[in-house]
Formats: sequence, structure tokens, C-alpha cells
Amino acid sequence: MKKMSVKLPRSPLAPKNFPVLPPIEGVALASYASGSRYHGRDDLLLVQFAKATKVAGVFTTSKMPSAAVDWSRTSLKAGRSTAAALVVNAGIANAFTGKAGARAAQRTAKAAAQFLKSPVEKVFIASTGVIGAALDPAPLVAAIQQMAPELARQGLGQEANHEARQIKISAARWQKAAEAIMTTDTFPKGATREVRFGKQNVTLNAIAKGSGMIAPDMATMLAFVFTDAAISASLLQKLLVEANVKSLNAITVDSDTSTSDTCLLFATGYKKLDGPALRSIDDKRLAPFRTALLDVMQDIAIQIACDGEGASKLIVIDVSGAENDAAARRIGLAVGNSPLVKTAVAGEDANWGRVVMAIGKSGERVERDRLAIDIGGHKVARKGCAVANYDEAPIARHMKDRRIRISVDVGARAGKGRGQARIWASDLTHGYISLNADYRS
Amino acid sequence: MKKMSVKLPRSPLAPKNFPVLPPIEGVALASYASGSRYHGRDDLLLVQFAKATKVAGVFTTSKMPSAAVDWSRTSLKAGRSTAAALVVNAGIANAFTGKAGARAAQRTAKAAAQFLKSPVEKVFIASTGVIGAALDPAPLVAAIQQMAPELARQGLGQEANHEARQIKISAARWQKAAEAIMTTDTFPKGATREVRFGKQNVTLNAIAKGSGMIAPDMATMLAFVFTDAAISASLLQKLLVEANVKSLNAITVDSDTSTSDTCLLFATGYKKLDGPALRSIDDKRLAPFRTALLDVMQDIAIQIACDGEGASKLIVIDVSGAENDAAARRIGLAVGNSPLVKTAVAGEDANWGRVVMAIGKSGERVERDRLAIDIGGHKVARKGCAVANYDEAPIARHMKDRRIRISVDVGARAGKGRGQARIWASDLTHGYISLNADYRS
Repeated sequence: MKKMSVKLPRSPLAPKNFPVLPPIEGVALASYASGSRYHGRDDLLLVQFAKATKVAGVFTTSKMPSAAVDWSRTSLKAGRSTAAALVVNAGIANAFTGKAGARAAQRTAKAAAQFLKSPVEKVFIASTGVIGAALDPAPLVAAIQQMAPELARQGLGQEANHEARQIKISAARWQKAAEAIMTTDTFPKGATREVRFGKQNVTLNAIAKGSGMIAPDMATMLAFVFTDAAISASLLQKLLVEANVKSLNAITVDSDTSTSDTCLLFATGYKKLDGPALRSIDDKRLAPFRTALLDVMQDIAIQIACDGEGASKLIVIDVSGAENDAAARRIGLAVGNSPLVKTAVAGEDANWGRVVMAIGKSGERVERDRLAIDIGGHKVARKGCAVANYDEAPIARHMKDRRIRISVDVGARAGKGRGQARIWASDLTHGYISLNADYRS
Repeated sequence: MKKMSVKLPRSPLAPKNFPVLPPIEGVALASYASGSRYHGRDDLLLVQFAKATKVAGVFTTSKMPSAAVDWSRTSLKAGRSTAAALVVNAGIANAFTGKAGARAAQRTAKAAAQFLKSPVEKVFIASTGVIGAALDPAPLVAAIQQMAPELARQGLGQEANHEARQIKISAARWQKAAEAIMTTDTFPKGATREVRFGKQNVTLNAIAKGSGMIAPDMATMLAFVFTDAAISASLLQKLLVEANVKSLNAITVDSDTSTSDTCLLFATGYKKLDGPALRSIDDKRLAPFRTALLDVMQDIAIQIACDGEGASKLIVIDVSGAENDAAARRIGLAVGNSPLVKTAVAGEDANWGRVVMAIGKSGERVERDRLAIDIGGHKVARKGCAVANYDEAPIARHMKDRRIRISVDVGARAGKGRGQARIWASDLTHGYISLNADYRS
């Protein structure tokens, strides 16, 4: 078994700095170097929530879900969508580990529950890293005991409640949290938005990890969103599912869907709306929050695509003219997953013939003789054939950018199709091969 | 636009020699350097058939089929499944070329029809190469005129009929034919079988090309099978569809489906069966032929996988215990298409966790806690978890082979699933990236 033993260079698509994430009332964070798999770095994150924090979740559609995914999926129901804690370990996915894996997840959750004096079914777990390796819970259990002082300093206390608001959480701590969940990621991923919620403002913070085994029809790798807004669990779930389709489920690195994909949205409920209870996500008072949630989730989704293993360019694919939005999304993913499109982008070659091929293989209803393609805003194909004598120079310049824009109109329903989607993908480079042929991550 | 300008090294998985293909009565072959796109090599193949030669065909499922595919699909119906000629050009796919592309296909077919004095709808065309580039038919039309002497020497004559049997076709000519249809292929692909057909023997010859843009749910790249057996067109079509699923549709290089995929099966009808007419492919007298057809098609399919762009290893994936054969095939393809599985094989790493992941993402019914995996015949996982303390040494040795065997039993229907499939895939190496990021093929 080969081991990951290299320090990877930071992705050229990484943002300059980690954003400044403000505190969120009812959320305390601690990270720790448990030594479970990595050495000399934090690999364990423990998040404590105020009482009555609501949670929504989406998980991998893989038929081989990890023990952590099994556990959290069950917690979501058994804990009636309220969360007391989240435990995330990096390095070992605890996937395909049979009964021993299920026991390891349970022991980890129990340790957090005892320490935080909460029911065990209100503890959520997420694990990523190598598949098939046994997860020894002992270092995680020991580490959880060591994290007390760090949590205590944040003022939420072991018996978190709405009176004991945490106030001392620093931006540096959010960054450390994002770093503690990284595996082959080359930069920590975070995003934040502040938005109007009735008469006050609420905050949305998100952290995530990604890198490889990133593909659609799932809830991406690990992503956690935190807010102080008071929103019921059922509405929270609807909001998450809605935003997920256009953010985490709209990116692809390598078409491989992880066993561990988990996205959880926690709402501590400190910021309440006046007036009658929210009954629908279409309630006008929710509109700014709904937009901000999509926005913050797209932000971290794009960061994950930008940190795709070996990525040198981000490909933004806009599809229009499809039969419906779902068809548009599948067409966009066919383009974004195509190794031939991805290598052409890596080679800075505006080889739009490969885009034609990828649309053709999507299986969706499209009309070849109405197909239009733009690259970087320049027309290259119209009505199912190349634009006569188009100027290659500005397109060649665009192909040297870090962000490559491909827009296609597929002309479905005799040109009357209204389905649209946007997909973000990374390119495919020698870096991906080096990483995945030479190391076991 | 980048141009292909390198001489690629021969695939390490190539067979030592091109096989010796015997003549087939009623088939004459000529190849020619038309200069259409390549220089200094043959790039045009013209095959002439005896009168009443039957033909069956399967084509790409792409929604962006090339003009050549459009033409041949139409010919199959309009010519009532009889073939007079086949024209294949390499270098320009004539795909996504609009009305001009359709006209170019028609002009090429007309030139062959006039030259061979046959109805135009009995001419079949296949083109591969760059997508979106215009195909000028002039050099092809001119070349067809030049091929007369070569065809005449083979004795079939301009007015081919059953009396004027061709007899002088050499094995070297079959190899030249296979070479004339190559694009980025690093070796010509051919296969032959001789098999009992009633009281006499019949021959099956096949030639093919492949390399990139090779994926399932289609009829692979270009493959042509020739036989002297007398079989009706409707049975021929059934036999081809049956064999195709387990041969050309069971290989994958890069999950990208071409716009040009075409497989045609020609039967000149010289060798007839005694007794009543064949009414079903289940007729016992057809059994040896049916087996030989699958065999010869698997042979060329495996050669295509072995010449996958950048391939260093052939991966043979056996799936059992699936809900049905179609589900098994999709699971096998999910494994064979996974970039993470393919790079692990390239890196000689027995990373079976990635096989677990790929099975999980297939979307098919599988039972995680019954899953079994063998690599190179060695047990690595049973009942949804790693085999305790298995010996890694023989597996590590197997991973250094050129042919890697992965067998999975997915335990569907509580272990009672009987679906099976075998898939052949190439690995994913730096060679694939170099080829596709640096050159336009």
C-alpha cells in the first residue's frame, strides 16, 4: 500500500486568503491532532451546538456508504433533526469496514455525547480518507477529552443552552476547523454571508473539503453550513436540498462519487423572525436567506472544484435550450466529466469538437443541427456546424485564462427548450495522474 | 488548433504480429494515400463486395452522429441490407459539419457507386478523425478512381457477381486495409476465425480501429467483420447485436462516446447451408458461427482496449451476483471507467477501496455487506470488509503484470443475483494526458 507522503503545492486556482468568518451564536469549535492517521497536523474537528439547534442533511447516493454516513443518516431521524455535536475526522473514511466500522462510529459518537452531556443520537459524524482501512476509535475518543478547554473558552459550556451564548470564537478558529478536515486538499475552504432575516441580520458560515472522488448525484464531499437563523428542521431540509442541486451537485472533478459525501446545515435558532411561523420556503421573509444559502454553497462548491486534484483551470459550463433543468444539468456534467474535454482545456486547446461529442453522449434530447457553442463569449458554432472563418485569436487568448467559459445551447424541442444549468468542473492534468497513480490518499 | 505531429510509440499491450487473414470469397480490398489529411500513409480503404452480399450494422448512440453514420444508417434501410461497397477515410470524422458534411458523404458514396456500377444506397461509409473540420470529398473521389487496378487484380471485377470469385487477395492486403483506417492507433487491429458451417468451413475476418473516445453504449469505433457464410440480413443483424453487447460494447478507454462509432458485418453468401432455410439464431447449425462471431469480435474489442490512448495495462473486470446481466455490465463499466481505479492500476497499486467506490456509484442494486473482491485471483474482500491479514505480496506481484484481473461479486438479491458480465478497460496514464492535452487528433 502506497502512502501519501508529499506536501502538495497549493492549487493555482486557490483564493488568496481564507475569508474572515464571524462567530455564530450557539456554535463552538475545537480542532485537535489526534494522530489517527496524519502526524503533525490537526485531523479532528469537534463542533458543539446550543440546545435545540436544527439540522438538515444530504448524503452520498453511493450504494457503498461509509459507516459515518450510515450513522449521520440515522441520527438525522433518531435525533429528530436536532444536533448537539458534529465530529469530523480526516484520513480514514471508515468506509467498507463492516461491523467493526459501525462500532467505531458509535464509540466516537458516544465519547462526544458523554463529554457534552447530550443524547448520542444528536451527535453527527463525518469521516473522509482511505476506504477499507479500519478506523481505531481510541485516538479520537482520547482527543475528544482533550478538547474541553478549547470549547470552554468559547463560553458555550458543557451544558450548552440559549442563555450561555458563545461569543469568543475567532476567525482563526474557523480557519483551523477548515484545515482540520482536509485530506489531499491544498487549501482550506470557507465562505460566509450576512443577510437580512426579518428585522435583524443572520450569518451563514460554511466550511468544506474536497479534492478527488468528486462527482455529481450526491452531496459532494464534506460541507458544513452554520447559521444563527431560527428555521424549522423541515424547512431547513427543503432549503438545503434546493441549494444543493445548484451548488455541490453541480461540480465535478473526476466523475467518481465518494462513499463519504455529506453536507449538513445547522441552524442554532438565535435569530428569530417576528410574525407568524414560516410555513414554506416561498415565504417572502425567507427570500434573502434562501439566496444567501445558495450563494454560500456555490462559493464553497466552486472552491472544491478549484481544488480538484491536479486542477490548473476551472471550467464554467452554461447549458441552455435543454428540455428541462435536469436535462441541462446532465448535459453540463457530460461535458464537465469528459476526459477529452478536460484534457483539451488543460492543453489550452479550444477543441470544441470534443464538446460536441460530450453533448452527444449525454443521452439527452438535443438537436444537432441547432446546436450553438460559445467559448469565452466568442461564437464558434451555430446551427450544427462551425461558424465560418471565426477568429481563433481571441479564443486562443481566453484558453490561457484560469477560468474557461463554455456555453452551449442545445436547441431541444425545435429550439423551444427552456432548461438551463451551470456546472463547474476542473480540468484533467498530469497532476491528477501523478497524485492518483503514485500515492494512496 | 494544435496538430498531431508525433509518431506514437507502439502500445506495450500490442500483439507481436498482425494475424494472417485468409481471403474471403466475394471481398476485394484496396487502400490508398489520398492526402485528405495525413501525408505519406494510406488513409482510404475501399472494399468491394460480390452481388447480394448481406450486411448488418450497429452505430453510435450519440445524439451528434457524423454525416458518415447518418449515411450508412440510411443505406442499411434503403439498400435493403445488401452491400456493394464500403469506403472508410481516416483523419477527418465528417462530424458536426452540417449540410456540407452530408453532401461530402454523398459525393464520396456516388463516386464509389459509379466506379463499381452499383446503386448508391448499397455503398457504406465510415469516417473517423477530427470533429467539426470540413471534409473535402475531392481527394477521396480522385483516389477511388486510382484504386481500380488494385481491385481488378483481385479478380472480383467491376461487375462483381457470384461467378467471378476473387481469389488473389493476400494477407498483406488485409493488414494494409487495417492500417489505412488507423488514426491515433499505434497498431493495426485484425482477427480471423474459421468455423464449421454445415458441411463446409466458413471464415470470419475482422478489422478495426480504436484509441480514444472509446466508451460503452455504442458500437465502439470502426469495426468491420467479413464472412463468406450465407446468412439472411435479419439473422445477421440479430447475431451482430448479440455479439456486440459482449464485445465492442464491453470495452472502455475513457468513457467518451464517439460521434462516429460504426460496426458493420458483411456476409458474401458463398458458403451455403444444406437443408431448410435458417429461421432463428438459435438454429443448431448456426451455433459454431455464433460462437466464432462473438470470439472474433471480442478479439478485436480487446485489441482496441489494449490500444487505448496511453494504455500501459489491460484491466479485465468480471462481475457476478448482479441483479441481471445488464446491471452487471453497468457495474463493470463503472469500475472500468473510474479514473481513480484506472490510475491506481497504472500505479500498480491494489487500491481496492476505489473498486468499492466505483461499484457504489454505479447506481445498481448491490449489497455492501455481501460484497466480495478478488484481485488476480486472490481474495481481498469478503462480506463487505477486508479479508483479515491477507497476504499483500502475491497481489503486489500481480499488479506488475500487463493484464490485471479484478473480480467482484456484488451479492444482489440477498446473494441470489445471477447477473454476470466481463468488461475490458485500459488504465489511465500520463500518456493519455500528453496525447490529449498536447495534440489535436
